[in-house]
Amino acid sequence: MKNLLDVVKDCDNFPYAEDTDSTYEQLQNSLWKFYIPEDPRPHGLLIDYVVETMPWTADFRVIPAPKKEVHLRRPEDADWQEKCTQIIERQAELAREKGVFPKLGKTRYEQFPIVGANFPVGIDRSFFSYLGTIGRGVHMTVYTRTESGLKFWIPQRHPNKVTYGGMLDNTVAGGMALGEQPLECLIREASEEAGMSEELIRKSVRAAGTVTWVTISDERTGGQTGLINPGVLYVYDLEVDSDMVFKPVDDDVYAFHLMDTRQVKEAMLNGQFKPASASVLVDFFVRHGIITAEDEEDYEEIVSRLHRKLPLPTRSH
Amino acid sequence: MKNLLDVVKDCDNFPYAEDTDSTYEQLQNSLWKFYIPEDPRPHGLLIDYVVETMPWTADFRVIPAPKKEVHLRRPEDADWQEKCTQIIERQAELAREKGVFPKLGKTRYEQFPIVGANFPVGIDRSFFSYLGTIGRGVHMTVYTRTESGLKFWIPQRHPNKVTYGGMLDNTVAGGMALGEQPLECLIREASEEAGMSEELIRKSVRAAGTVTWVTISDERTGGQTGLINPGVLYVYDLEVDSDMVFKPVDDDVYAFHLMDTRQVKEAMLNGQFKPASASVLVDFFVRHGIITAEDEEDYEEIVSRLHRKLPLPTRSH
Repeated sequence: MKNLLDVVKDCDNFPYAEDTDSTYEQLQNSLWKFYIPEDPRPHGLLIDYVVETMPWTADFRVIPAPKKEVHLRRPEDADWQEKCTQIIERQAELAREKGVFPKLGKTRYEQFPIVGANFPVGIDRSFFSYLGTIGRGVHMTVYTRTESGLKFWIPQRHPNKVTYGGMLDNTVAGGMALGEQPLECLIREASEEAGMSEELIRKSVRAAGTVTWVTISDERTGGQTGLINPGVLYVYDLEVDSDMVFKPVDDDVYAFHLMDTRQVKEAMLNGQFKPASASVLVDFFVRHGIITAEDEEDYEEIVSRLHRKLPLPTRSH
Repeated sequence: MKNLLDVVKDCDNFPYAEDTDSTYEQLQNSLWKFYIPEDPRPHGLLIDYVVETMPWTADFRVIPAPKKEVHLRRPEDADWQEKCTQIIERQAELAREKGVFPKLGKTRYEQFPIVGANFPVGIDRSFFSYLGTIGRGVHMTVYTRTESGLKFWIPQRHPNKVTYGGMLDNTVAGGMALGEQPLECLIREASEEAGMSEELIRKSVRAAGTVTWVTISDERTGGQTGLINPGVLYVYDLEVDSDMVFKPVDDDVYAFHLMDTRQVKEAMLNGQFKPASASVLVDFFVRHGIITAEDEEDYEEIVSRLHRKLPLPTRSH
């Protein structure tokens, strides 16, 4: 990466309507929209390859070009809302059985919600990115004040991990499960990943907004490339005393590094961070006055791109 | 205003490409683009009324629909870059002499830059909004910690002011002049408006990003309505001791109020704040964990809209 704007664009790499070339319109028009029952708003963006390759069950209605829409049909049953999750599960199973998506992994038995839906509906983590719905997670940056400036507790992902193996991350980071609230998720992840107590989090953490983007997936995810993955991360800051030390508590984290501002920036520019994690740290640097308009010529665009308006609804009606 | 999203939309009221109705495309296609010499990127967005009413001098080339472009022609002279500012000044003078824009006020002898231009070029403050270029300013929120939570020093604008008379504002707020840097502008404004020393600002202020929007002007500006005004504010936080007291030092500020979080929120919802100032305070509330995802259902959209990607370049080539 040449500069910090490139770092942010590495995560937010879907074109903008404001772009002067025609890439936005072309890509936008190529996408299919995913609908769930009783809601006129699309909740996912699918690519041709997925729609054409998927062995759609009769529970879905695929409306071809120029509309390009995939609708989950409203089940007849009284409990049709609960049925929606099962229908999506069955669809994932079928795709897995037929082996049509070589990169589709095993069921993870972790349900992510369809964000903005009017009722709870989940998609297994393994299948999630195929439907192009909004991914949601929490990221917490833990830092300490030293005489030579701020230092950050940066975990390195295990080299064996399929997704972003060996790359740097934020101190605590994780996906929000179906029905989970951001702070609740953060408390769970902080305990699982860094052995931190609920008490410490509740007492000292500061919610500091969101970082949002639209990513076109690439090979670093370890999965299917070219998928449209809009994302929202709820970001948190936590200042700790300089005597607090972080050590890996599970196999996900390989090591924790205590890095100063310069080291973090260098690692970002070298592409060592997971893209979304780099974006959250750039946002931290902006909010804490470490990056300023005076020394960063792309300041305005960086701040905007870190907070992209997502092309799908983020709340229920 | 019904809720905080309405507060943010009161400032950022230009439609988005992501909107499902067709308002964006309609409005977008109706606009004219403003160009300066030797730069293929547009730097302003003009409305039909302005382009059709303006007595354009021969220094401008007006290319009608479907292109809808207004070009400031490259002057022949060697010092053509400096000439650009004079040409715009002459254009404003002519419009004033002919009285074609009833709301166009007197010359203010304050030059605002064309943001993102490759050379310094200014527009008088009085004429600025007509060309639809990016407006730029600084806003600093000054707050103090009390036992009952944060309190904010909120100035009330003089009731006699033509623009947003009597409305509430941020502690220090002002437009950035041609050639001025954000922190430099902040130091000037903090001294002029609140009698604060450069030393205090340099020592204690924290740069915290930007708030951006696209506004369609309304009657509260005291000027022409319906203009397209993209804006970027560089936001700063300053925590002060509880014994520091603010008093008006010039005629712009009528009074300073020390308000708690609840009072600020109420005043926002009652529409008592200048729209851009309300947005900056919402951003402060988000960054400081006063508004969280748990108790604000529009959280994700609010954060995105506070940081809109502007439809014009924010930096030189």
